[in-house]
Formats: sequence, structure tokens, C-alpha cells
Amino acid sequence: MTFFRVWAPRARRVDLVLRRDERHALDGPDEMGWFSGNVEGAGPGDDYAYSLDGGEPRPDPRSPWQPDGVHGPSRLVDHSSFTWSDGAWRGGVALADAVVYELHVDTFSPEATYDGVISRLDHLVDLGVTTVELLPVVEYPGRWGWGYDGVDLYAPKSGDGGPEGLKRLVDACHGRGLSVIIDVVYNHLGPSGNYLGLYGPYFTDRYGTPWGEAVNLDGPDSDPVREFVVDNALMWLRDYHADGLRLDAVHAIVDTSATHILEELAGRVDELEAELGLPKFLIAESDLNDPRIVADREVGGYGMDAQWSDDFHHALHAHLTGERAGYYADFGSVGQLAKSLRQAFVYDGSYSPHRRRRHGRTPAGIPPTRFLGYLQNHDQIGNRAHGERSSALLSDGLLKVAAAIVVLGPSVPMLFQGEEWGASTPFLYFTDHDDPELGKAVTEGRRREFASFGWDPADVPDPQDPETFRRSKLDWDETAEPRHADLLDWHKRLIALRRSTQELVGEAGADVHVDFDEAGRWVVLGRGPVTVACNLGGERATISIPPGDVVLSSVDEPVVGDGRAVLPPESVIVVRTP
Amino acid sequence: MTFFRVWAPRARRVDLVLRRDERHALDGPDEMGWFSGNVEGAGPGDDYAYSLDGGEPRPDPRSPWQPDGVHGPSRLVDHSSFTWSDGAWRGGVALADAVVYELHVDTFSPEATYDGVISRLDHLVDLGVTTVELLPVVEYPGRWGWGYDGVDLYAPKSGDGGPEGLKRLVDACHGRGLSVIIDVVYNHLGPSGNYLGLYGPYFTDRYGTPWGEAVNLDGPDSDPVREFVVDNALMWLRDYHADGLRLDAVHAIVDTSATHILEELAGRVDELEAELGLPKFLIAESDLNDPRIVADREVGGYGMDAQWSDDFHHALHAHLTGERAGYYADFGSVGQLAKSLRQAFVYDGSYSPHRRRRHGRTPAGIPPTRFLGYLQNHDQIGNRAHGERSSALLSDGLLKVAAAIVVLGPSVPMLFQGEEWGASTPFLYFTDHDDPELGKAVTEGRRREFASFGWDPADVPDPQDPETFRRSKLDWDETAEPRHADLLDWHKRLIALRRSTQELVGEAGADVHVDFDEAGRWVVLGRGPVTVACNLGGERATISIPPGDVVLSSVDEPVVGDGRAVLPPESVIVVRTP
Repeated sequence: MTFFRVWAPRARRVDLVLRRDERHALDGPDEMGWFSGNVEGAGPGDDYAYSLDGGEPRPDPRSPWQPDGVHGPSRLVDHSSFTWSDGAWRGGVALADAVVYELHVDTFSPEATYDGVISRLDHLVDLGVTTVELLPVVEYPGRWGWGYDGVDLYAPKSGDGGPEGLKRLVDACHGRGLSVIIDVVYNHLGPSGNYLGLYGPYFTDRYGTPWGEAVNLDGPDSDPVREFVVDNALMWLRDYHADGLRLDAVHAIVDTSATHILEELAGRVDELEAELGLPKFLIAESDLNDPRIVADREVGGYGMDAQWSDDFHHALHAHLTGERAGYYADFGSVGQLAKSLRQAFVYDGSYSPHRRRRHGRTPAGIPPTRFLGYLQNHDQIGNRAHGERSSALLSDGLLKVAAAIVVLGPSVPMLFQGEEWGASTPFLYFTDHDDPELGKAVTEGRRREFASFGWDPADVPDPQDPETFRRSKLDWDETAEPRHADLLDWHKRLIALRRSTQELVGEAGADVHVDFDEAGRWVVLGRGPVTVACNLGGERATISIPPGDVVLSSVDEPVVGDGRAVLPPESVIVVRTP
Repeated sequence: MTFFRVWAPRARRVDLVLRRDERHALDGPDEMGWFSGNVEGAGPGDDYAYSLDGGEPRPDPRSPWQPDGVHGPSRLVDHSSFTWSDGAWRGGVALADAVVYELHVDTFSPEATYDGVISRLDHLVDLGVTTVELLPVVEYPGRWGWGYDGVDLYAPKSGDGGPEGLKRLVDACHGRGLSVIIDVVYNHLGPSGNYLGLYGPYFTDRYGTPWGEAVNLDGPDSDPVREFVVDNALMWLRDYHADGLRLDAVHAIVDTSATHILEELAGRVDELEAELGLPKFLIAESDLNDPRIVADREVGGYGMDAQWSDDFHHALHAHLTGERAGYYADFGSVGQLAKSLRQAFVYDGSYSPHRRRRHGRTPAGIPPTRFLGYLQNHDQIGNRAHGERSSALLSDGLLKVAAAIVVLGPSVPMLFQGEEWGASTPFLYFTDHDDPELGKAVTEGRRREFASFGWDPADVPDPQDPETFRRSKLDWDETAEPRHADLLDWHKRLIALRRSTQELVGEAGADVHVDFDEAGRWVVLGRGPVTVACNLGGERATISIPPGDVVLSSVDEPVVGDGRAVLPPESVIVVRTP
């Protein structure tokens, strides 16, 4: 017997359709529009769907598994049946001590499955990262994609291994001491296979998003929608043992309720932490430069544990590459990079030419470890016409400089899969929409977007072309090649230094001191006993440094002495004062 | 010579059109889209307009005076030329000590002018209120209206007396010890005479309001729009000597900036306070039940000094009248009235059947004087089909009970003009749109709205009918009639008691103790030495009260003794414990 429950406030009748043809009328609606009932003979592994007012059977909005994809039936899952081996897991390193590794299941391993990831976890342990962040894992239309078009928000992608596969992956990570973050998308749902609107007012036209209808979090009947979101988040943390969540594009979540959904979620996660006796955390992607996102709830914040630091990325990327298109127009100076090292937000209320308005607010008082710092991520790579990684844009010298700034910087470092060896494979935007009209629209939309930046449309890879996906897969063989092995070794040494140096981690880590020279294109980052001296430019640079031992250097024979270092172009040294 | 400056970021050329036919090209645009220039021969009293790219002359978005209405030219005003007599004014009573009187200029006096108000200020002094709150004073289309259709946000209504008239009124108020609040509308502009969109992106379609386009406070080019709002607020406080502002419907101001416009405004008003050495305050109308609106900025609040307390109004009104239509469906019990006395918000996260969602958040820790409490206001009266005041709906007994609860309650009391004598005139919704299409739309919209509540459309007064306006004017003669004189005296005595009792005013006023009986329909409000015992029902009620003297009673011979009062139906006594 299984208890079924579904919210369908506009329906007069809801049938559970079991194993494709057995119809069982559910009781309801109750006063809030829920239908429910116990159904004999239904159990884990059974397929089911709901029929509203006698209509076509549709997937459960909270389907735990869509074995036949977004349009097929849902399948019952018993979360208590999985045999976990992580009983000794205490939550891993604190977020403030973490080194995060962003990973896309379908392109990380040739197998393109959760199990494929497991087979390569030892590489991550060897690299020294502490935390794996998975791009969205839920069912979306087609065989592959980034995952941001998810429509079954409770169902791990069946083609990647489904619920069992994802649990095996989390269990395997914990077995190796790795924490797991899952990327969740609550600002919109994908354009195809999204049946939620048939069930109830999940969406609203009061606000818009660039990607689809906005979610109804503050209008009539929004309570069950909020519950849908909160329960989903708690499910990953509880039933899938995830240690944290990354919340996609929270700036596109408009909620005028007195308690913002993010704040409500933070409170509920705190309760779960207390219940489980395990740390759990939330990381937001936010374009608002609003410290309220990560400020404590006690002082009016939303209580996210951290947020991504795009300003730091843009400052670093724009200066190193010289790119100024799009939002990079707002960045480019060494001073901005220095500012982003000091306080994450370059735009803290100052005027943004790209946005054509003042942007942001000072994050004074917010610890730097409430931000994630990175040279690249899936978006910054994949939203380029050709999906080039930094390693396709920068010299190895600058890659090492950038890695040192990221990994030894004041924020929590994050790498994107393959970054550690300067992978030569791109990470392109790819989709696999089975709806031909939608596929065509995606192809043409992509081409149009880049045509507006001056690209030849014919030159822009087609997201729907399977080759675009295939090219984006990591080529693990290249890790054995000298150039890649050298970069990999550099990253390992940086991560080892960070993790072994008390002053470089934790919210109470050493103060950040930054000095720079705009014309000379150098920047020095001091954190307690560790000094990272970077020459970002093409000329030799002479930089004052404190006395100490050179513990890392990107050049063979750094010239250090008399309180200064003479650095060749595009190089970095790390000095440790005894 | 006069310096002109206007923001027109899309224009290539802007001409100042002086005295209808002299064109002077302004310099510009600068990089933010401003045009400016000194023009010889222009001075206070001169008419002017701007022509964009050679187009029709249009009023200045910041026009200080529209002597010929919203479509006519602007007129230069020299704010320094007015002779103020309020040099000794120190800001009046603190907001937490205030008794506010909401006043609509066109209906308050037969003259329907600022000077007409002045001629009746002695009545207010005699009544004992401390603060006059003016419905919006800015130029809107037509001869009369409520003022929420304003389009020249810097120009006091010319028909009411223009800039000079408004200054005379504020000066006269200060001369009598009365503070002045001006109602300002920043969530939308009126539908006619709104030329701002020709000048620049003042509006946005990213959000909507029920009344018109939303204001662009967070999109591209929003900085000058925010400046337009902030400068406007500061103008009333500085140039017109207003003591405070009432911000209309802030829930319809969507602003995702890291610093919300309300918080920015609060900071700027604090700066002005410091500069002038005078207290200035901001009061929000908010439908959010979000304590963030009035919480201090230091703890993540927006720093409004107070907000209107609609929940208190609804709880009081719904219980006393028995009405349950529309939003009154959420109210009606004595317990809700008691809750609103304890903490303003009845809905503090609880489910609202009318809104079909949870609503609000606890205002714990927020002083009760950060809320304004009222039995009625312009909206609650005027948004009824027939504009009936409470005095048309309740017995004199219940009017006295309600007045006691409002005036002696924990929040800052507010009365609506004429309430003090139970005015028999309605306050209807009236407009005077000169655009016949718009007028027709308003008439039909009003009828349709009430038809949806079951009213006969023919029975709903036509907002465009001059008679609808005329009927809404106060009839001062009736104050001499016994019933009205008696109610007026009751209000005077309540206000005098509040103002003379230290424990009833101020943020640090005595704790609020509320006891009630749902079935018995009584409520007792205790504030320090003062106890207000109210029988809201139609049966005799026996209520425990502390020992003390009966200082006010709505019945001739209250039966008090042995720690209890026996109150006849619909009566109230006020006891003071020595």
C-alpha cells in the first residue's frame, strides 16, 4: 500500500493511474486543494501518473523518478531502501575551509553517468578538493544538456542513473571524504515536459525571467508552491545525503512576501541540521551584489551560507584576457581585481556602465568565505560562442597566476572540471530537445544571440548537434601530457598549501592585504604569513615582499631578496614568512 | 538668469521654451543624458517648457508649478522668496506622541483650497490633534480628485493655491503647533498629463501596478529616476517645511536593488534632519505586513518611522460592522482585534483566506508607535460604493467605543476629517478627468468593480459627476447639532487624555495588556495606569477591571465596583488607577 498525495486546486477529481491502466480515485480536494489516498497493491518500482478530471495521465509534479523521461510515467521510489555506507560521515570540511569542484555529470566521464563520476573520484581526492558541486541533476528533456531546463525537480536524471545512481555517487563521495553540493533551479522550469501548470498555479505573470515563466511564490495559492520548493531542497539534503545546495540565479526569484523564500529555506535547513546533527549549507548564485543574501538572518539577511562571486571572476577574467564585451565592459583594471580580493563586490553602489545604473552595496562585515571565487565556471565558459576555457585564452603563466589568486584567495575557491589540467576540450552549450520546433528555436536563438555580438551565425556551434555535446566531454588522456600534467601539479600544490595553512581557511582566516600597481600590472595578496606576488603583465615587475621562503613559484628561478621579488612576465611566487 | 537642467537621455537636442515662444538650446546631453544651461532673462514667475528634438513643448518633469494644469506650461518658482514665520518651529511633537488628522484639501473646506484649510485650523487645535496629514497635493488632471492621479510630482495643485498657497498652509500649521505630513505617490503616475515617459525611461514593464505603469527603480537608467523620487521627497521636507511624508502603497514599489529606494530615502532624510537640525519622518502605507518596512536600517530594515496598520483597521471595522466582504473576510473576531492591539499585524505568517496564502511576519520587537491606528481613512471610506463613513454604519455607542480604542490604543491614532464629529457627509470616489474617454473609462470601471460585488451599477455614484465631489465636502454646520457636538466632545476628551498621560505616548509607553471575551464581545485594553474597558456587543457585559477612577465613560452612569464594571451594550469606560 502506498499513500499518494498531490496538489491540484483547480481539479474536481484526481485519479491515480497505476501501472498505466489501473485508475484509483483519490480523496479530495481538501480545502487547500490537495488530493490523497492510500492505494493497495502499489509499491516501490511501480509506474504511476495522475489524471486530472479524467484527462491524460501526467507525471507527478513531485515524481521521484522518470525512467522514460519527462513525458513518461513517474515511478515510486522508497528512499529508505538504499543501503548507505556513509554512517560515519560528519559533514566533511566546513564550507569556509572547502575547495569546491564544479562537475557536469554527462561530460565529466565518457560514461556520462553518476557511476562514471564515481570511477574518477580518486582524481579529485588526489587533486585535493574537498567538495563536489554537481550541475543540476534532475530530469530534463532529451539525453543531455546542462540541466537548467529541468522539469521534474524531484527526479534525478534517469539516463544518468536515476535515484539509485545519484545516491551511489553521494555515498561514494562521502566514502572518500568529499562533500556534495547539488545545483537546484527554483527560478523557472524548462520549456518542455513541464506539466506543473496543469496541476495548479505554480507560475505567475506578475514577474518574468529570461528563461521561462516566473514561479508563484507570493501570489494566491503560493503556499503549496513554496512547500514544493522547500520540500525539494530538504529532500536532497535528507534523502540524498547532499551536504549543500547551490541555488541557481536567485536574482530571478522575485518574492515580495514578508519572509523571502530564501530566508524561509535557510530556516528550514537550519532545522534539518539540528535534527540530523549534520552541517548543511546553501550557496546562492546572485547577480544583485546585495549582502542581504549572505547576511545572517538575525540582522535582516536571508542567511545563505555563501554566494558566487561573479565580480571577482569578471575582474580577473577581464584583466587577464583583455576582453571588454558585454558585462566585461564593467571590468578590466588591476584595481578592480584588488577590490574584489578585498571585499568580493567590485560594484558596491558604484555606477555600472554596462547596467547603466548604480549597482550593489558594500559587503562590509561579511566574511570573505561567504563568497566563492573562481577563474571560470560552466556559465562563463559555456556562454561563450565557442565554449573556450581560460586555458584556450591565456598563457600557462597566466593560468598559474590566476590559479594562485583563486586557490590562495580569501574566498572559497572553486574549479570547473578539467580546469586543474587546463583541459583543451571546450564546454559548449548543448541541448537535446526532442521537440523539433523547440530544438530549432534553441539553435536559432543561440545563433541570433551571438550574431548580435558580431559572430557569423554559421560559425556558432549548434546546441542541438550531438557533436556539440560530444566535443564538450573531458579528454582524460591528456592529463598525461606534459603541459597538462604540469598545470595539474600546480593546482595540487596550491590546494595543498591552502588546506595545510591555518591562516588561509576558515571565517576567522587572516586579514586580507592587497597591494597593486595599475601601470605595472602587478598585485600582491597577503594573508597572514602567506604572500602571493603576481605579475599579470608582459613586462618584468619588481615587487616589495616580506621576508620569507618561496614556497611556490611558477618560474624556475625567482629572483628574491632585499625585500623584493623580480618577477618575469606572467608569473607568480608564493612566499611564506616564518 | 536661471539655470535649467533636465534629464532626457534619448533626446539629441533639448530646447528650453521660455514664455511660450523663445527657444534656447540647452547644452547636452552629458554622459548620463542631462541637458542644462543658464538662460538670460528667465526668472521666477516665467512660464517655460521643454521641447525634445524639436517636438511639442512639454511640462518639466520637475515642474514646480503648473498654473494652467497638467497640460500647460511650467512656471518658475523661487523657493527662497517665501516669507516663513515658523523660524521658531522645532518640529512639533515626536511622531510617537502624535495624533494625526488626515485631511483632503478639496473637501475639507467649502473653499476647497489651502487657504480654506487655514481658516479651519483652529478647529484642529481645539480638537487636540498634533499633526495634519494632507492627501496628495500635487497637480493631477481636472479640478478635483483624491490626488493619487498626480503627474507633476513637484507642483502643488494650482487650483488649490499652488506653491505659495501650500507654503502658507504649512506655515499656518506650524504657527498653531501643528505638524504637517504630505502624502506622496511614488508607485505610479496618473493616466493623463503624464509626459515623463517622453523624457526618459521613468517607467518599466518588468513589474506592474493596479493603477498604471510601474516606476523604473532598478533597471537601466534608473539612477536619475531614483534621484527624481529622492529629490522630490527632500523638496517637501526642505522647501515646503513639511515635517513628514506618507508614502503611498509601498508594496507596489518593486525594487530589487541592493539598497531599496525606501531605505535609500530614509538615509537621505536622516541626512537632511542632521543638516536642518529638525526632525523629519517617513510613514509608509504597506500591504506587506513586513516588519522590515519599519525596522531600523541597522538590522536590515528600511527605516520607515511608521506604517499604516490596516490589519488593526480591518479587525476593528469588521467586528463592529459585521461586514465580511472582500478583505474583511479575513477579519471579524474580537480575538483578532485584541491581537492587532498587541502587535498591529493580525496576519503575522498565518494563512489569509482572502489572499489564499500565508501573509506577514511577526513584528516582535517593533514598538507599537511605529504603526498608525485608525477606525477609518480616505481609502476605507472612499473605496466603498457609497463612501459611507463609520458614522453611517455604527451606533453612536460603537463610534465612541471605537474612538476610545483608536485614540487610547498603543499605535499612533489617526482620524479622517470629520470623523471627530461623526460627519454625515460621505467621502466618495470622485474624479474630474477632462479627457472624455478616460472619464468614461473611470465611470464604467467603477461601476463594473462594484457590480462584481453585487451592486446595481446604476446605484453606484459616478466619479465624474460633479455632484459626487460636492456631496463629499464636509458640512461644518452640523458640528453644532447635538449628536455631532457630543461625538466631537468625546473625541476631544479622548485626545486630551492621551496627550496628558505620559504612559499613553512615546515609544517607551507602557506595555500593552489586552484581555477579551469572544462570546461576550468585550475587550479590555490596559496601558499602565489606564484601562479601557469596551463592550462591543449588544448584551450587557461584566468585565474585571483594576481599581481606580472612571475618567471617561460613554454612558451616563457606569456601574463600577468590586473589581468589575457592568457595561451596557456598545459602551466603553476608561479607568485610571492612581
